[in-house]
Amino acid sequence: VVRIVVHPDNTIGTREALEARLDVDWVFPDDDMGVRSALADGAPVLVTAKWDAAFLQPTLEWVQGLGAGYEQFPIDTIRGAGVVFTNATGSHPCVAEHTFGLLLALTRNIAPAIRDGMSRTWSPIPPMVDLVGKTMAIVGLGFVGEEIAKRASGWGMHLIGVKRDPARHSGVVDEVVGLDQLDEVCRRADILVVALPNAPDTRGLVGARQLDLLGRGWLVNVGRGPVVDEQAMIERLTDGRLAGAGLDVFVTEPLPPSSPLWAMPNVVITPHTAGESPGYTARFADLVAENLAAWRGEGAWRNRVC
Amino acid sequence: VVRIVVHPDNTIGTREALEARLDVDWVFPDDDMGVRSALADGAPVLVTAKWDAAFLQPTLEWVQGLGAGYEQFPIDTIRGAGVVFTNATGSHPCVAEHTFGLLLALTRNIAPAIRDGMSRTWSPIPPMVDLVGKTMAIVGLGFVGEEIAKRASGWGMHLIGVKRDPARHSGVVDEVVGLDQLDEVCRRADILVVALPNAPDTRGLVGARQLDLLGRGWLVNVGRGPVVDEQAMIERLTDGRLAGAGLDVFVTEPLPPSSPLWAMPNVVITPHTAGESPGYTARFADLVAENLAAWRGEGAWRNRVC
Repeated sequence: VVRIVVHPDNTIGTREALEARLDVDWVFPDDDMGVRSALADGAPVLVTAKWDAAFLQPTLEWVQGLGAGYEQFPIDTIRGAGVVFTNATGSHPCVAEHTFGLLLALTRNIAPAIRDGMSRTWSPIPPMVDLVGKTMAIVGLGFVGEEIAKRASGWGMHLIGVKRDPARHSGVVDEVVGLDQLDEVCRRADILVVALPNAPDTRGLVGARQLDLLGRGWLVNVGRGPVVDEQAMIERLTDGRLAGAGLDVFVTEPLPPSSPLWAMPNVVITPHTAGESPGYTARFADLVAENLAAWRGEGAWRNRVC
Repeated sequence: VVRIVVHPDNTIGTREALEARLDVDWVFPDDDMGVRSALADGAPVLVTAKWDAAFLQPTLEWVQGLGAGYEQFPIDTIRGAGVVFTNATGSHPCVAEHTFGLLLALTRNIAPAIRDGMSRTWSPIPPMVDLVGKTMAIVGLGFVGEEIAKRASGWGMHLIGVKRDPARHSGVVDEVVGLDQLDEVCRRADILVVALPNAPDTRGLVGARQLDLLGRGWLVNVGRGPVVDEQAMIERLTDGRLAGAGLDVFVTEPLPPSSPLWAMPNVVITPHTAGESPGYTARFADLVAENLAAWRGEGAWRNRVC
């Protein structure tokens, strides 16, 4: 029976879903130190969202990432060690639901109504913003971006997808362009949804210039904080050049209490929970089962990065 | 030039949209008394959301309601006086956007995150609820219900429409049944969206029995407060038999500060703003222009109730 080590920093319910799905020798250490000893003891498989150089033991054969993004993993080093790395892309359709929740809390003035509700205050707040008739740009048309596009398809919006390779997409959006055309897309968009991972070519991609081109529009970031120039965004939210922002990710997480974003009426903050879903843990366990079969030579890898 | 009286209780922007759209002799009184005098002076047209028996002057010919619902108007009396009444159904697609905003604020735990945000608290709250895979029942498949269904079509839910005449619908939902099958629908649904007007046959339609059949599901009411038994709903929200409720309408509006709904973590309240939209005022002005032509014998009435 294979021994699989699971890093403790994972979504609630992950352990239960894995244990229910697969009858292997699970190890669930309490901390990094426990993960390191289990791997030093020869466990060949690690399921983790965090990385530590000490995890790369000679007996390690396969690392399954817990998220879609994997900027925290030294892929070249892992590849160099002959270790397989698979990520969890495709397990988070809930991010698309979350995207609409953040956006509508702003455009329908549901966030101010919730804040008013804490003092039992009934106060209709105009103006609302209609999504129908607007142009939504989805920057990052990977699995999550496509799921957002699918949900947006019945909403009467014009949908533009922006991605590294614009030739590959499902056809749900009205147009797809490359990252090099981001400026023009920002100029045309009313709503800019960021669904990109943190990577050398995405960091700071949405900067002062792109936000100025967006103008008095709406920004939703469910990708990674560093993709957006947070300071430039804060300045434009403060003076109203940018209408509002729905943010699940930040440059520093948890978002420090000192951040001015907390006090902005035109901002909705969720604590990096867009990927949380009871369905996620079951989908993730299925992914691990499929990749475990591949590791045993009984099938193809899913989401193999290296 | 025809004189048209507009009751002051209307959506912000209505006056501007009407004046921009139609060159008639507009009268915008400040109160009921002013409306009454203008009608007593012989104005033949009234645009209003409110009714007062004194509005029914012998010279009155046409009343244009400001909303989709018209339970506040004595239609038999109005008809008996030979006055035409038209409502504003079809002007509020924004209600569908609002419906999703209320629902996702609950299922994605965005409402608790907004409340936490007021004290700059970053606190991921499980569990989330996925809409994908769920069954959504839309009770009231009129214009608004169909707009909700259109938007829900890309979300991977099973959609059931419930309406008086199940033979007439657009085909967007997966099944349509009559109001007499509401109990069975509540039993099957995870999410119950109420988009019905207040009428003798809808009042209290969603009562203790229906809520018990829904079980630990989600209720969204963007129709009218009295359609749902508010006391039965409050009891089930308090003890968790009902998972949560997104409410834009109430039996008494404004919702009194004494209502226990204000303090419930699993409730999101908006102050009857689901129909608010900058697009609404323009759409409404178009409706008035079309019906003004009909009043002049130059076209067909739209939304004629009597």
